[in-house]
Amino acid sequence: MSGGNKPQSPVVTTGQAPAGSGPNEERGRGVTRLLYTGAWREAQHYLAERMREFGLTARFDRVGNLYGRLQGTDPASKVILTGSHIDTVRSGGHYDGAYGIAAGIAALVSLKERFGPPRRTLEVVSLCEEEGSRFPLSYWGSGNATGVYDLRSAATYADPDGVTMQAAMEASGFGADAQPDPLRDDLEAFVEAHIEQGVILERTGERIGIVSAIVGQRRYTLTLEGEANHAGTTPMTMRQDALAGTAEMMLAAETEALRHGEPLVATIGRLNVKPNTPNVVPGAVSFTLDVRHSDEAELSAFCELLLGQFEAIAAKRSLKLTCDLWMNAKPAPMDEELSGRLQSICAAKGMAHRTMVSGAGHDAQLFSAVCPTAMLFVPSRRGISHSPDEYSSPEALADGLGVLTELLYQLAYEER
Amino acid sequence: MSGGNKPQSPVVTTGQAPAGSGPNEERGRGVTRLLYTGAWREAQHYLAERMREFGLTARFDRVGNLYGRLQGTDPASKVILTGSHIDTVRSGGHYDGAYGIAAGIAALVSLKERFGPPRRTLEVVSLCEEEGSRFPLSYWGSGNATGVYDLRSAATYADPDGVTMQAAMEASGFGADAQPDPLRDDLEAFVEAHIEQGVILERTGERIGIVSAIVGQRRYTLTLEGEANHAGTTPMTMRQDALAGTAEMMLAAETEALRHGEPLVATIGRLNVKPNTPNVVPGAVSFTLDVRHSDEAELSAFCELLLGQFEAIAAKRSLKLTCDLWMNAKPAPMDEELSGRLQSICAAKGMAHRTMVSGAGHDAQLFSAVCPTAMLFVPSRRGISHSPDEYSSPEALADGLGVLTELLYQLAYEER
Repeated sequence: MSGGNKPQSPVVTTGQAPAGSGPNEERGRGVTRLLYTGAWREAQHYLAERMREFGLTARFDRVGNLYGRLQGTDPASKVILTGSHIDTVRSGGHYDGAYGIAAGIAALVSLKERFGPPRRTLEVVSLCEEEGSRFPLSYWGSGNATGVYDLRSAATYADPDGVTMQAAMEASGFGADAQPDPLRDDLEAFVEAHIEQGVILERTGERIGIVSAIVGQRRYTLTLEGEANHAGTTPMTMRQDALAGTAEMMLAAETEALRHGEPLVATIGRLNVKPNTPNVVPGAVSFTLDVRHSDEAELSAFCELLLGQFEAIAAKRSLKLTCDLWMNAKPAPMDEELSGRLQSICAAKGMAHRTMVSGAGHDAQLFSAVCPTAMLFVPSRRGISHSPDEYSSPEALADGLGVLTELLYQLAYEER
Repeated sequence: MSGGNKPQSPVVTTGQAPAGSGPNEERGRGVTRLLYTGAWREAQHYLAERMREFGLTARFDRVGNLYGRLQGTDPASKVILTGSHIDTVRSGGHYDGAYGIAAGIAALVSLKERFGPPRRTLEVVSLCEEEGSRFPLSYWGSGNATGVYDLRSAATYADPDGVTMQAAMEASGFGADAQPDPLRDDLEAFVEAHIEQGVILERTGERIGIVSAIVGQRRYTLTLEGEANHAGTTPMTMRQDALAGTAEMMLAAETEALRHGEPLVATIGRLNVKPNTPNVVPGAVSFTLDVRHSDEAELSAFCELLLGQFEAIAAKRSLKLTCDLWMNAKPAPMDEELSGRLQSICAAKGMAHRTMVSGAGHDAQLFSAVCPTAMLFVPSRRGISHSPDEYSSPEALADGLGVLTELLYQLAYEER
């Protein structure tokens, strides 16, 4: 989590996705639980109540992260933390984020019931925000817990309706000085269970993914300016067609990404044409380029190579190219010792598993900067996520819960 | 003007361009004179008044075409007609259409003043509509004059606000049974002066373009469906990226059009991506393809070739391709005898001129089906049209007027 971001977005922004823009989405279906909305408040208070019923000590911090605590018998112990985020994208699924919280609660409750109080304190967290779907920032929950965000910056962000994050937070009952500071300096480890949001486990038939690293991401907006002209009266040889130039760049991105090989991915996901009229040669195009890799040097070299090709294409076609890097998140390696434990646990349970890079960003990447961190995936049907069609089978969810519970047992109950 | 069009658009539709979508456009600048609006009514009545002042007999037909007549002395003579359209695109320029009307009025008035009444009747027409900027059809003026449109169809078209063309026409004072039928069966020739709307004359330095043919046009909407997926978690080799497939098609279109050579042009002007989000692999793309050529066989062969390549690209990438042909206008050759006269006139005046294909559609193409028709172009600065920046110099306008006047003199005054 570092460097290169815009002032309005000091960590990572996923951009502002308009309602109804998600893949596979049907308006009105799925879960929409944006930060500091009524649905969000309801979910967090529901979870707090259930935590208490289950015998965990529930508390909120100042930004609305919800913790459920199972006090350890060793008063000097630091905290073993598990969990994920409670917010969703618009019309999202039931599993992204929520699964890691539910699995964490279930793990703590089953450990408490089977083994009584742990040696070292266990906590489960329902982080207030990760998706960046309401305000132009993301990881607000884990970012506040790990010291990446300054809580006072909440006044500087606003949602599309002009409501500042500060106002929304206060209207939800948070943001008061009297409430606990969100920063955690007492963490011994963080473990996050999550759905894969990809197709790899489903295609290989493996039951658990053990994350070796979360990829670094760079996101650019590129703008190409040519000359809008009449589609009928401008000969092919007299055109400065910004869209034709973009086509050549898009193919270069795909070709070079395939040539470079996994785990690199390069995506042109958003593209807008001006004037976007059937009978006018496009005068300007803007498009986004999203490049990810688990190795910072490889990521950097690839971006340099590709942008060099873009510049050559623009020059050849007399198009003006501008390039804006608006996200630059470094890769986040997971803890090797914890990942090794996950491998041993899967092996002992006879579960086919795979060590893999996470192509998506997760709260774990923020925790990895402050404490040993591990992350495990369960398969997602057809890789679909951020959609009402998101699905992981009960068996897959139970697999992940079993592995998570065993790791938490080792960390919190075993002598070391 | 034939075949292949959608029922709601029996001749040619330029599609419905949203306000502010034109090239080089600044909202609020330029001329917006859409059919049957207040600005349109004001312009037509202003012209009628000026025609009368200048000694022409002015009359409207039932759809609002305005004619200015200079009666010929030969009672058996048919009518030599000149003119163009009074409507504009949104935020258009001052010259497109209006120049041909103004030049026609000026030519008739100067002929009358210099030579008195002509042998054969001369008329200038301010056609009510050509651009298709308000209702989803175009050439409403020349289409009614030449019998392509049935006036009763006006009830079946509506503007984006739901106002039918019939209602708009009546509110403007037209459409009544008592008003003259717009169909003309008494035309001996039609001559249209127009700005080039292209860069060729400016680049070659020639002063007059003589149109040999107006291109045929085919417009398609192509839709590519792949699978929307997470940009981080979907390996390059597991993608069905609709936008990458589109990029390959766009380059194929450009490459094949350049290989085919002039006067063929192929344009992908409108492109929309779903979900159009930086971090999602595009699941679907739709784009328009506009292909023009003055030769129907060449046009047809090129489209067949290119669509075959598109199909191969889609198949290779496991994308679903659908193709919708929504405009299919045949090429319209101009009259050789009249064009020969224009060449001789330019030569006699010492004006550098060029015989050229019109890549844009014009009212002349509808008249060419019912009477010998000629068309002449004057240079457009930087080829810009459909924009407030549209400009042709006073010298260029005078050149066109001089040539037009001479041709009308030959046709209406000389013995034959």
